[in-house]
Amino acid sequence: MKGVDHLAHERNKTEFDVDAMKIVWAGSRHAFELSDRMARLVASDPAFQKDGRTRLGRKELFKNTLRKAAHAWKRILELRLTEEEAGWLRSFVDEPSFTDLHWGMFIPAIKGQGTDEQQQKWLPLAYKMQIIGCYAQTELGHGSNVQGLETTATFDPETDEFVIHSPTLTSSKWWPGGLGKVSTHAIVYARLITNGQEHGVHGFIVQLRSLDDHMPLPGLTIGDIGMKFGNGAYNTMDNGVLKFDHIRIPRNQMLMRVLQVTREGKCVQSNVPRQLIYGTMVFVRQTIVADASTALSRAVCIATRYSAVRRQFGSQDGGMETQVIDYKTQQSRLFPLLASAYAFRFVGEWLKWLYTDVTQRLQANDFSTLPEAHACTAGLKSLTTTATADAIEECRKLCGGHGYLCASGLPELFAVYVPACTYEGDNVVLLLQVARFLMKTVSQLGSGKKPVGTTAYLGRVQDLLQCCCDVQTAEDWLKPSVVLEAFEARSARMCVARAQNLSKFENPEDGFAELSADLVEAAVAHCQLIVVSKFIDKLQQDIPGKGVNQQLQNLCYIYALNLLHKYLGDFLSTGCITPKQASLANDQLRSLYSKIRPNAIALADAFNYTDHYLGSVLGRYDGNVYPKLYEEAWKDPLNDSVVPDGYYEYVHPMLKQQLRNARL
Amino acid sequence: MKGVDHLAHERNKTEFDVDAMKIVWAGSRHAFELSDRMARLVASDPAFQKDGRTRLGRKELFKNTLRKAAHAWKRILELRLTEEEAGWLRSFVDEPSFTDLHWGMFIPAIKGQGTDEQQQKWLPLAYKMQIIGCYAQTELGHGSNVQGLETTATFDPETDEFVIHSPTLTSSKWWPGGLGKVSTHAIVYARLITNGQEHGVHGFIVQLRSLDDHMPLPGLTIGDIGMKFGNGAYNTMDNGVLKFDHIRIPRNQMLMRVLQVTREGKCVQSNVPRQLIYGTMVFVRQTIVADASTALSRAVCIATRYSAVRRQFGSQDGGMETQVIDYKTQQSRLFPLLASAYAFRFVGEWLKWLYTDVTQRLQANDFSTLPEAHACTAGLKSLTTTATADAIEECRKLCGGHGYLCASGLPELFAVYVPACTYEGDNVVLLLQVARFLMKTVSQLGSGKKPVGTTAYLGRVQDLLQCCCDVQTAEDWLKPSVVLEAFEARSARMCVARAQNLSKFENPEDGFAELSADLVEAAVAHCQLIVVSKFIDKLQQDIPGKGVNQQLQNLCYIYALNLLHKYLGDFLSTGCITPKQASLANDQLRSLYSKIRPNAIALADAFNYTDHYLGSVLGRYDGNVYPKLYEEAWKDPLNDSVVPDGYYEYVHPMLKQQLRNARL
Repeated sequence: MKGVDHLAHERNKTEFDVDAMKIVWAGSRHAFELSDRMARLVASDPAFQKDGRTRLGRKELFKNTLRKAAHAWKRILELRLTEEEAGWLRSFVDEPSFTDLHWGMFIPAIKGQGTDEQQQKWLPLAYKMQIIGCYAQTELGHGSNVQGLETTATFDPETDEFVIHSPTLTSSKWWPGGLGKVSTHAIVYARLITNGQEHGVHGFIVQLRSLDDHMPLPGLTIGDIGMKFGNGAYNTMDNGVLKFDHIRIPRNQMLMRVLQVTREGKCVQSNVPRQLIYGTMVFVRQTIVADASTALSRAVCIATRYSAVRRQFGSQDGGMETQVIDYKTQQSRLFPLLASAYAFRFVGEWLKWLYTDVTQRLQANDFSTLPEAHACTAGLKSLTTTATADAIEECRKLCGGHGYLCASGLPELFAVYVPACTYEGDNVVLLLQVARFLMKTVSQLGSGKKPVGTTAYLGRVQDLLQCCCDVQTAEDWLKPSVVLEAFEARSARMCVARAQNLSKFENPEDGFAELSADLVEAAVAHCQLIVVSKFIDKLQQDIPGKGVNQQLQNLCYIYALNLLHKYLGDFLSTGCITPKQASLANDQLRSLYSKIRPNAIALADAFNYTDHYLGSVLGRYDGNVYPKLYEEAWKDPLNDSVVPDGYYEYVHPMLKQQLRNARL
Repeated sequence: MKGVDHLAHERNKTEFDVDAMKIVWAGSRHAFELSDRMARLVASDPAFQKDGRTRLGRKELFKNTLRKAAHAWKRILELRLTEEEAGWLRSFVDEPSFTDLHWGMFIPAIKGQGTDEQQQKWLPLAYKMQIIGCYAQTELGHGSNVQGLETTATFDPETDEFVIHSPTLTSSKWWPGGLGKVSTHAIVYARLITNGQEHGVHGFIVQLRSLDDHMPLPGLTIGDIGMKFGNGAYNTMDNGVLKFDHIRIPRNQMLMRVLQVTREGKCVQSNVPRQLIYGTMVFVRQTIVADASTALSRAVCIATRYSAVRRQFGSQDGGMETQVIDYKTQQSRLFPLLASAYAFRFVGEWLKWLYTDVTQRLQANDFSTLPEAHACTAGLKSLTTTATADAIEECRKLCGGHGYLCASGLPELFAVYVPACTYEGDNVVLLLQVARFLMKTVSQLGSGKKPVGTTAYLGRVQDLLQCCCDVQTAEDWLKPSVVLEAFEARSARMCVARAQNLSKFENPEDGFAELSADLVEAAVAHCQLIVVSKFIDKLQQDIPGKGVNQQLQNLCYIYALNLLHKYLGDFLSTGCITPKQASLANDQLRSLYSKIRPNAIALADAFNYTDHYLGSVLGRYDGNVYPKLYEEAWKDPLNDSVVPDGYYEYVHPMLKQQLRNARL
């Protein structure tokens, strides 16, 4: 079967330079080459193969992950990979593990919140993995509201130690990845108490397990919190529970970059600005947005390829049936997701720039853009993760019945992805933060304070309240300025209307609570505008490669006009467009689908995913779906024997009417 | 802890008679008592406990299901349960198994498509479970398009037999539940060929396995198709693959109620009307709608109770935090789902009536209402299953992080439910059928043919194209006639607009294909109208019990006005309502949420689910969530040992910098 390509006829239709698009997708030639090299390295290493992961019981699955994590680390050392390369390698191993938290949360927390001495002491140990760390923030009874955490860290001036304690069951740490079975250390968040006074929640470095025999230290109760959604998926991770019974740690294990506790137990603010925390948040959320485009594009790649393989109905005179990708119903569900993958990629790229910009300003003590940057990343995290979770499930449905098989890869992709809607800020809570920022921005418009960055358009609110969309033909919807204005006007008008409604309440907080669902809608409108405008900005760049810009234009308008169709109520009720114009947008959308259709497979190929990384029989590059699905079936443990375990105890007595006497 | 009720303060707020509501929900006192008795029977039987199902490997899981199925059958025999009671018992065992297909598809297929002699021969065997049957229709390459099936059944006049054969890999039967490991027989759908001529797809009774040693009969390749989405979930079912290599069966094993093949191989139509098949479809889909309301209400029950238990933010002066159910953002997501559960329940109830009506008419050779009934059930199957799948996931998200734990019950509920969107007609394909019917109905309006049943409103299309919504205050949205007219006008106008667009195409089929995504939207609007109107009809009935009708009214308007808000684009673009009226509807919606809030827990209690059936720590009746979550965690196999399997091979060498020499 080597060399078979059932999708060759599709690839021959391509109207653009796929290799050039791969570089656009990756962000740069450097990023492309690096990720391509690492993806192939992982895919070609038998130790990293994924086969059968969804069939393993919890213990085997977890042990297998420990093996892969160790193997990955061994390869990283052997090949002397850079930090960037190592990051790519781990991501292509594509299995959540304790190392994610060690590298992604434990080390950054020490770097961000530790003093120079603390960094000098702990980072070398962590970088060599002589200690393995996790990030213990959430508790059984406390998630989003960090200030509500119950764990206490009480300073004992007698011994110069902190006493870490879980005063209640609900204060048990709950969820931290890597905590349950592996980590030797944790950053523990607890309420700081000195001299009988509370000083808010702070981070402490706490050793959890012996570095010799791995037993939990006295006073700690630690375990895994049990099975999570899906086969394989996050069950490779030891999310944990942790109870403290008056554990003592030296004073210098409180992370003291921002607030210091002296030998006497006095709290002293350092001159390091607290705003640094927001800088970290911008960083983390930018990563989440990038991950959203990755997860979404994987699902889209699978669904697109399989939609070209699968045929159903439409056969005439016994000929081949129609490829399902040729149905407009399929196109109208699939192509907007393809467009979203690209849209999220580009907004993620822009967020990387934003993070650099914010960091530079922070270093220059310029905090002016921070609130806007914070609101913007919070909103984009929410928007992209919600859309991606929904999109993966939609892609699964687009694959019909076979999408329900683990062999399609989509069930695991969904199950492993959905926590992104909850962690690092629940998506609704984040949108409320965005709404709060928008309402503040609107309320200050009269005061001469000029809105910046992604809210700059609100400075033109008077124009936007009055502008009239002048679309007269479907073609008019292909003008960037027209699309942008429609989205700006929609968002601005929604913001102003919400602000007016809020002003009717005597107590603004009551108003905010009562109208919160409406406010969330305004926040969504604002965030969608950001994604659309960054996509349009991208098109203005000089993008080399035959036909590449044209394809991106098509995708950009599909993304925007599909949103316009989906949120038509917003656009019409604010009077931004007329029903007739909406109908023209819909016509244009159909025409764009036809333009994308011959390029769909190539646009999915441009993600440059190996079959290993995709992990999907339906999404195979060569489209050789059915024989491989058939092969895959026989690997199920149930097929180990022809007659299943339990037949003689349970089924045979039933068939032979001997059940009354059977012991079950 | 016995007798603890953390939700007692919630239950004390209730403003209606919960016991009376339980009967409304069940449909009758008889149905309530029966289901209540069976639910308790199952819940109190240790053999049926669910504990740990999501932690089992495939083989153990499957064996456990065989045990439960045998135990259920044993209890059914011992207690001499009626068919109705047995059905309830099986449904409360709440675990997909081969018996579902035996009772739900194999037996009904013989009853519906078998001749009297065939029924006399096979049904007694099946009723006693001396044989176990499945329903083998879909193939690896063929799902929705039944006429495209490839399996052949060629009549051999020499031996008076059919030769069943799989000519290609894609013709392998694929998906049938119960096929993989258990069934002794199957109804196999195959293309009938006699005398070299094709006669369409028909059903054949084929023995699969020896009744002695359970080995597959010669010429058959049978196995399980492998893991499916989720933990536990449908992995308790042996969905199977089946290849035929020229299997021979006697001629009298073709189901011949409608078409007979004579000894000479001639095809003879019987005088039984083919339309009977549609009667069966109406029946099956009515069951699916009822199941949707069950699945949705389970998810809603869990999310509602946990939303009252969970507190987050809003604490002042160290007091308790706010229950998350008190946030308007939570209410605006949760309460429409609560309302949908009731809405789907009542439309399901009405479908039961419709099935009786259709059956009576069929018996009187009256086929006039069949197309409308068929379109209506197809549409409602699509609408309710799509909404339910989305709603379960939304409920999971409403439970925050803990919803992601299998202990919440929601991951398994989702994974086990989602196939309903695909089986018995892919939901988009079904909506296209509805759209086709609607377009036909509209095109015939001029001809004097009066639309019937759920399409009767299209007979008033001239009025509906011109009517003006006269809502002036938020209170006006509580008038049934106002709400109904808005939904009728929206649907009628969308249908007419689509019909006009279609008429612009020379070839109607081309137009239908090109505009199919728009047509699907019209079908959705029509189906939503049906649900709203049946809910309003329900309110007109005499419903006993203090406050019950009032609560149902609140739910009905929440259902309708939330749809209006969500599909605002439809209502505004067709000019059915104004933006101002939409805004009033939104105000009314908020006020309805406040009215439902004190009754929310009781409205979830009215579903009368046992903790066993809910299978959710978060949804426990007593609200004692945190201690039980904590307990549950320790049951995970990973917690069997303090130091995990694999630590010494993989983690210790990493910590000790000895990885270079380690064998992984």
